[in-house]
Amino acid sequence: MPTVSPTTTIPLSRGAPSLDIIDVEGLADAAARAFANDPAGATAYGTSVGYLPLRRLVAEWHDVDEEQVLLTNGSMQADAFLFDELARPGTQVVIERPTYDRTLLALRQRGAELHPVALEPDGIDTGALEALLAAGANPTLAHIIPNFHNPAGYTLSLAKRQRLVQLAQEHNFIIFEDDPYIALRFRGETHPTMLSLDAGAGSVVYASSFSKTVCPGIRVGYLVGPADLIAAIARRATATYISPGEVSGAIVYEFCISGALERSSARVRDALEQRCGRLASGLARELPEARFVAPDGGYFLWVELPDGVDSTKLVAAAAEHGVAIVDGDDFVADGRSGAIRLSFAPVTPEQIDEALPRLAAAVASLQ
Amino acid sequence: MPTVSPTTTIPLSRGAPSLDIIDVEGLADAAARAFANDPAGATAYGTSVGYLPLRRLVAEWHDVDEEQVLLTNGSMQADAFLFDELARPGTQVVIERPTYDRTLLALRQRGAELHPVALEPDGIDTGALEALLAAGANPTLAHIIPNFHNPAGYTLSLAKRQRLVQLAQEHNFIIFEDDPYIALRFRGETHPTMLSLDAGAGSVVYASSFSKTVCPGIRVGYLVGPADLIAAIARRATATYISPGEVSGAIVYEFCISGALERSSARVRDALEQRCGRLASGLARELPEARFVAPDGGYFLWVELPDGVDSTKLVAAAAEHGVAIVDGDDFVADGRSGAIRLSFAPVTPEQIDEALPRLAAAVASLQ
Repeated sequence: MPTVSPTTTIPLSRGAPSLDIIDVEGLADAAARAFANDPAGATAYGTSVGYLPLRRLVAEWHDVDEEQVLLTNGSMQADAFLFDELARPGTQVVIERPTYDRTLLALRQRGAELHPVALEPDGIDTGALEALLAAGANPTLAHIIPNFHNPAGYTLSLAKRQRLVQLAQEHNFIIFEDDPYIALRFRGETHPTMLSLDAGAGSVVYASSFSKTVCPGIRVGYLVGPADLIAAIARRATATYISPGEVSGAIVYEFCISGALERSSARVRDALEQRCGRLASGLARELPEARFVAPDGGYFLWVELPDGVDSTKLVAAAAEHGVAIVDGDDFVADGRSGAIRLSFAPVTPEQIDEALPRLAAAVASLQ
Repeated sequence: MPTVSPTTTIPLSRGAPSLDIIDVEGLADAAARAFANDPAGATAYGTSVGYLPLRRLVAEWHDVDEEQVLLTNGSMQADAFLFDELARPGTQVVIERPTYDRTLLALRQRGAELHPVALEPDGIDTGALEALLAAGANPTLAHIIPNFHNPAGYTLSLAKRQRLVQLAQEHNFIIFEDDPYIALRFRGETHPTMLSLDAGAGSVVYASSFSKTVCPGIRVGYLVGPADLIAAIARRATATYISPGEVSGAIVYEFCISGALERSSARVRDALEQRCGRLASGLARELPEARFVAPDGGYFLWVELPDGVDSTKLVAAAAEHGVAIVDGDDFVADGRSGAIRLSFAPVTPEQIDEALPRLAAAVASLQ
């Protein structure tokens, strides 16, 4: 059990798992099998769609044609390709408020016109989105993180998934279903993806990743979407890097088909459930004025701060007290968040227990 | 010894090695060591500069500071980042004629104004470049493939390297030294890089890759350049994909430090020397009217065709005769090349022996 030195900063900041929940042995085994079973496929130049057996496997999982799948160097590269393809200066894009900070940055860099819509504990406020559309907004894209949202930890309800797909079909926009955390549900039932609810109508592009179930350093993500859009993005990827990592793709493939993926995901979920539980109970105890909804999976918990506590000042005060946290303001396109993001993925339960009194002291120092 | 069926197309087209010269066992060993020796470093999110021990090793090889090195998802991704950083619509870029077709495409996509300068057997025509500069050209960048050029197989002489660096320093442009084949010299002495001749003056950005010495599917390349430019590209890379493959970087690192890189490179060079020799002697025998300069390394041989033989028609005729070759026109920004590119990397000596009478028959069919 790791001990926690009072002088060591406890990282509740980064959306990354601690090493103890990475199946390093499973990865080493998968690498050995990748080189033994398919030396030509793993070592040669592939094409920009990525390692073909893994592409086929992903297509099977999502019940789509292979031509609808493109593997990428992590799912952020998938986002970048999709935005390069669809977001021009002035392109209207619906985003959640809050949303993933790197998505905000990527869309702003491309000059997109952002329409932030409030995120509720059961997902984006579809009523507000309808009102926005009725008022004349004409988005090309709506970026939605459906499961265990980053930063909020919230999950989109089935009813709202259905409504969003209807709206996309009626108003002719594409839902970008950004779903890296789907396999990390530790409580409750998994909802169908909007990709599946759309049933091939072409209104949804789906992205996910093996960063949270295999490991971040492997850098394998993927896009699923209409075949013509995927083909266009594949041409873009060819011109960018010829192919994503074929060795990485082959390792992930062997990891998946050997059963390691299921074992590893179960282990990760168990650890996350324990860490999340400890964080939620600790928050209730140490910061009773803070408001939060304990997530059913994923890495993150969004804490709305007591009135009068400034999130930016709290980040600095927490750092002085030995806790790294992220300012909720980083995740909103406009105005203030009144919140912070806590990640329970990189820390042990013991570290969480140690961190919360520090965080409470930091809050108290501002009151 | 592989037999060659007369109905099977022999690929003298692709710049990729055959599987028999890839050290698959060395790769498997390197992967096992990567996970055993540095599980945290290999599996975690890195930063956009890539796997740090490999970055340090590359910095040592080139005798530069670590801050001057950025690892990428293959060296084409390095090119893409550099062009994104430096090439705007209208940016003047000197290119060789012929040059790598994907470089042409990448620069055209960014709207660069291209200045093609003739490539001679000892490298770019520096006299023509001087005349171009004297006439008022004001390039930001000069793209140079110094060793075993793709497509020409030619190598830049030491005198021309020195002259190019002088010109870059005097006229304030950056030489992009694109050097993926440097380790593949099977004859003669390696010239110093222009990066080293520039001696830290900031006039050279250097790119290379492990695709030709480890394997293409690993997708690990790198850039070396002025620290401020590398830092700007690192920010761009962060916003694109967080980090390149850390698992891949760790495998390459272990491959390098174990001695496998030297063994593998020697094996590749021996095979390429034999293949190149067989191709050169076969060409002299079967196509005595064709002109070429046998390279001292690399993958490629550039064949200037007999008068009246159209390169584009020859590609089609060769395909009908069971040989895949690449039209030299693909590698020039303007006009015709009168040439084809042959790659000896993906084929055995026996395949080369079989291919040349087919190619000769294809040429004869056009005369």
